[in-house]
Amino acid sequence: MVKIVVIGGGAAGLGAAGAAKGVDPSAKPIVYTEFEDVAYSPCGIPFVHGKEISSFEKLFLATKQQYVEQGIDVHYETTVEAIDTKRRKLRVRGEGEVSYDRLIIASGWNYESPSIEGSNLEGIYRVKNIRRAMEWDKYLDTVKSAVVVECGPIAVEMVSALVHRGIKTTVVDPGPWPMAGVVDPDIIEPVRKGWADAGVTMMWGHRVTAFGGNGTLSYVETTAGRIPAELAIIGTRKVPNNSLAQAAGVKLGSTGGISIDAHMRTSVPEIFAAGDCTEIPHGVTNVPLQGLSGSHAYAQGKAAGINAAGGDREYQPVYVPWAMLAGEWMIGGISFGETLATAVGVKFVSGVANGITRARYYPGVKPIIVKLLADPKTRRLIGAQMVGGEGIKERADFLGVAIRAGISIDELASMENVYSPAIGALNEPIAIAAQAALQKF
Amino acid sequence: MVKIVVIGGGAAGLGAAGAAKGVDPSAKPIVYTEFEDVAYSPCGIPFVHGKEISSFEKLFLATKQQYVEQGIDVHYETTVEAIDTKRRKLRVRGEGEVSYDRLIIASGWNYESPSIEGSNLEGIYRVKNIRRAMEWDKYLDTVKSAVVVECGPIAVEMVSALVHRGIKTTVVDPGPWPMAGVVDPDIIEPVRKGWADAGVTMMWGHRVTAFGGNGTLSYVETTAGRIPAELAIIGTRKVPNNSLAQAAGVKLGSTGGISIDAHMRTSVPEIFAAGDCTEIPHGVTNVPLQGLSGSHAYAQGKAAGINAAGGDREYQPVYVPWAMLAGEWMIGGISFGETLATAVGVKFVSGVANGITRARYYPGVKPIIVKLLADPKTRRLIGAQMVGGEGIKERADFLGVAIRAGISIDELASMENVYSPAIGALNEPIAIAAQAALQKF
Repeated sequence: MVKIVVIGGGAAGLGAAGAAKGVDPSAKPIVYTEFEDVAYSPCGIPFVHGKEISSFEKLFLATKQQYVEQGIDVHYETTVEAIDTKRRKLRVRGEGEVSYDRLIIASGWNYESPSIEGSNLEGIYRVKNIRRAMEWDKYLDTVKSAVVVECGPIAVEMVSALVHRGIKTTVVDPGPWPMAGVVDPDIIEPVRKGWADAGVTMMWGHRVTAFGGNGTLSYVETTAGRIPAELAIIGTRKVPNNSLAQAAGVKLGSTGGISIDAHMRTSVPEIFAAGDCTEIPHGVTNVPLQGLSGSHAYAQGKAAGINAAGGDREYQPVYVPWAMLAGEWMIGGISFGETLATAVGVKFVSGVANGITRARYYPGVKPIIVKLLADPKTRRLIGAQMVGGEGIKERADFLGVAIRAGISIDELASMENVYSPAIGALNEPIAIAAQAALQKF
Repeated sequence: MVKIVVIGGGAAGLGAAGAAKGVDPSAKPIVYTEFEDVAYSPCGIPFVHGKEISSFEKLFLATKQQYVEQGIDVHYETTVEAIDTKRRKLRVRGEGEVSYDRLIIASGWNYESPSIEGSNLEGIYRVKNIRRAMEWDKYLDTVKSAVVVECGPIAVEMVSALVHRGIKTTVVDPGPWPMAGVVDPDIIEPVRKGWADAGVTMMWGHRVTAFGGNGTLSYVETTAGRIPAELAIIGTRKVPNNSLAQAAGVKLGSTGGISIDAHMRTSVPEIFAAGDCTEIPHGVTNVPLQGLSGSHAYAQGKAAGINAAGGDREYQPVYVPWAMLAGEWMIGGISFGETLATAVGVKFVSGVANGITRARYYPGVKPIIVKLLADPKTRRLIGAQMVGGEGIKERADFLGVAIRAGISIDELASMENVYSPAIGALNEPIAIAAQAALQKF
């Protein structure tokens, strides 16, 4: 029996352990996590804070007993301190030396540290762990004003939560608009306007320079002046949590994520890695990406677990369909938009559709904007951006498959589409956007 | 200037006229319609009857003046009586002989006649024309019980409307379940159950044999006995309305629809056809199909109009993504399901997913069933069937493009997908269904 050990109890780590059991039912994978829990949905935390979801308990997917019954041996609140790659042993706090045949590193991510004065004050919240979230949720009841420090995706969700809680909210971000590294300004504009209408103060192109207060946060210093606040939400970008891997000599890539091959193998024999601690090549540009979604982490974990247990599963370069709720809107896309494509020097032809999601007379009809980017030479789809009232996740999945399959905008322009008043408009906005792009060829 | 004449004022006819103007702005297309109106959405009629939409006026897309301004000359309530294909002239009631350079036949469809005794009684309703619908809507207020005679797609929508109006409803259909030619029993089961819960009486495997009453319908005779009813909804299949074309010697195909080539040309020079009066080859089987959707009619009309005006637009074989509201559910698919594939002798491997549309803890999460059919040799997608609470139209569009592009279920099984609790589940049901199908290879 091959002894499989997993470091990390998130989507990648549990996905790996479960998939390893699937390939080799005799395996008894060990999972080490520093936390009190596994198998809950951290992505749901902002929505409990926003009271869309009634309790944190709902976020748990499985009980600890279920893992026991599955034959997955989870060691909770247990820190792996070092990896001895030559002797294939871990040093585990409280357990001493633990050997492995195959190791899967799924140690996840942290928020990039803002590295500014006052960062140790009470009242500075990094949304991530469910036990901490339960404590913070009580604190939110006492808070009158909050500052969101940089506006990444989780911060975007937290802005809605803070608004729903009636907390006066100020967003401070060095970028020109929310999630500026990911989303185009025309796509985020309805979200920005919705926040403004909801009373959110936005300071784009500004930075937080210090946290201030007497033990507990009472104000935030910014390049635009001091903002009184009892709460700061850290919304900086995700960085890989890989100090353990790095200390063991596992090779890191240009993003700081662990370098892996298509079978999730690291530079060290018998060590695999998966999830937010790794980097994965982008399907269009081949540039490595880091900090993807929970579904990516889960799929990578499964691939790592299958391969570690003796199976064979390739993980493909990613085109990153993404979507999320942002205020009253859904935003999403694949690959990149015009802003990022321009920044990285990728040439494109774009087309935009201002469409609707149902027949214009049907109750609940919502606006939807679809922007497609095509390669000027091959005419293939290379990116997309969307904002709308419904149907964004499904279209992002669709376009994610389309881009991987090398589908051209000609094919999208002539696509068949469903027309049924209650659920779809006569003209599909994806087709209209493709037709608009074709006009420019 | 080429003189373009269109017979028919539905989606195909108006699409053709508009597209012809787009290619040749000097063109002044003439459109003949027997009806009082063009440019309304007949697909919305069941939802006005069901009171989801507050008035019939909302279904109008454009005013008559707008067509005048666009340079499209619509002749309302005007019957074309004959086509002289040699002299390129029409005989038009009230106008005499009218010449054309290019003719586009877009004469639409009728319900297949049940051809039974009593069909001329008052109280037998064929849902199609908006003026008649306005009159029928008042009649619905007086009706206590109704029989739906065969359960095609419009009849499915009308069942919901009758239920919403509090009318006791009986469905009589020779098939084993609703829309049995299109949908699989496991997919329609939640709809059937919803109807039963709403008090709808269903008689599958039975036929209506006569309508009875004194001038106005008071009962319906069926193979299962007499049903008292003041209203009968005809829900038989759509048949092409092409007696005019047939009389003129335009070649019809095996379905009774007009035979056309990829440029919407009929067997007669300078005559094109589009929409429900035509037949179109199915992309998988190459078998001709007839009676598709309004968006197909519109796209075909555009192709016919472009080609008639001297442009060049091919219309591709169809894979027929479809979706609709059915009671409290959405149903949909592409190409065919297991029932139809089996009936026509197409071999397949299928996989089914019982999924969810959002995170299982997020408010508004709905069940969704996705079934995929793959070719046993090529592993390519060849059909799909779905039922769920949301996101069916978007997935049908997606799979419609996937099947046309020849995407395999391997590609769908390893698709990337969006995970965001409020709008999508960790595992996309399309991917799960593809994985389930792969297990059978």
